[in-house]
Amino acid sequence: MTGAATRAAAGRSPSAGAERPEDAGDLLALDRAAQDLLFRAARTANTFTAEPVTEAQVRAIHDLVRYGPTALNAQPLRVLLLRSAAARARLLPHVSRGNRAKTAAAPLVAVLAADVDFHERLPELFPHQPKARDWLGDRAERVAQARFNAALQIGYLVVGVRAAGLAAGPMAGFDPTGVRQEFFPDGRHEVLLLMNIGRPGPQAWHDRLPRLDATEVITTL
Amino acid sequence: MTGAATRAAAGRSPSAGAERPEDAGDLLALDRAAQDLLFRAARTANTFTAEPVTEAQVRAIHDLVRYGPTALNAQPLRVLLLRSAAARARLLPHVSRGNRAKTAAAPLVAVLAADVDFHERLPELFPHQPKARDWLGDRAERVAQARFNAALQIGYLVVGVRAAGLAAGPMAGFDPTGVRQEFFPDGRHEVLLLMNIGRPGPQAWHDRLPRLDATEVITTL
Repeated sequence: MTGAATRAAAGRSPSAGAERPEDAGDLLALDRAAQDLLFRAARTANTFTAEPVTEAQVRAIHDLVRYGPTALNAQPLRVLLLRSAAARARLLPHVSRGNRAKTAAAPLVAVLAADVDFHERLPELFPHQPKARDWLGDRAERVAQARFNAALQIGYLVVGVRAAGLAAGPMAGFDPTGVRQEFFPDGRHEVLLLMNIGRPGPQAWHDRLPRLDATEVITTL
Repeated sequence: MTGAATRAAAGRSPSAGAERPEDAGDLLALDRAAQDLLFRAARTANTFTAEPVTEAQVRAIHDLVRYGPTALNAQPLRVLLLRSAAARARLLPHVSRGNRAKTAAAPLVAVLAADVDFHERLPELFPHQPKARDWLGDRAERVAQARFNAALQIGYLVVGVRAAGLAAGPMAGFDPTGVRQEFFPDGRHEVLLLMNIGRPGPQAWHDRLPRLDATEVITTL
């Protein structure tokens, strides 16, 4: 999508469809409105309206994205939602200066973490391989697996937030050690990302940044 | 979704919709057919038909999912597609015994890797912050960022493969060091995951494994 087409798309409803030179989307089974809602017209938002994000919306998003696959069906992602002013105030000192105002103002802020002791649930989640729990006795290996599979799940979650008609604002600019110590003192979680969630507000985003072409990403042997 | 409902859904077209007790999906902007195609009826496939996955399909998937967000817009995911018999033969010795037959038979196998030197592209990809490249002089920090953001992109890719009406078969059961040495001898890539891609074949999956409830994943403060 060219910059001009992106700017045009950004000014429309996500479901309205954007004019675009290529017709690659015609090869997909997913209809154009859904392509736009989830990817083509969806954007990372930096401002939000005051409209609340309800618990029912959060549960609907989870009910969709929980079906995304993870290795050993381990599902290590854990989501801490900061709703109250008191909880938000505990987060802000650990957020980079440039992300602080929008994080304070967003209707909902999610702290996205990985449960490093996810293996304890494997007897329920991966029952046909009773030894799976024992494969994961090494904590460093579990941290790596938890981080990777939770990151996959965050990818699904970005899509799920957009599927709810909301905008996601993922943020890596914060102190993960500080956030972990503040909210996960049990020591069994790794904090991976923050995500503001809400309806996009005025001037919610800049022009879309360039994306790599297929020729730069894909090699065929 | 209960086991019985999952079995019912698995026997239908992904877009046909599955009966389900909850109505959480009604709260989403994404229509039911798309919810089913991407998440509710979509499954990790272990068998595939012989129908080829075309280069045009691969490009259409990339053209959709490349809009998914990454930190610093860095887009570190690189995709190596193994089409030829010769290329496939180079991979199989590094794949775990249980994954070998399906990897040999899949219409297409993708090796999903992260470019550890992604920062070299930041002057083009994140042009409003010319110093971003210099923030990433430390290789260990780059490896962590490349792995995390490429994993997010793999989450988008799973959704994109399904958006094309295809099934994804992500596999962690392989030797990443062996695959890296075989296919990425330049030393600037980390191999993260393998993914078979194609139309699901006979008995492509077992019953769906249990998913965690919202109450087990989400905490609100």
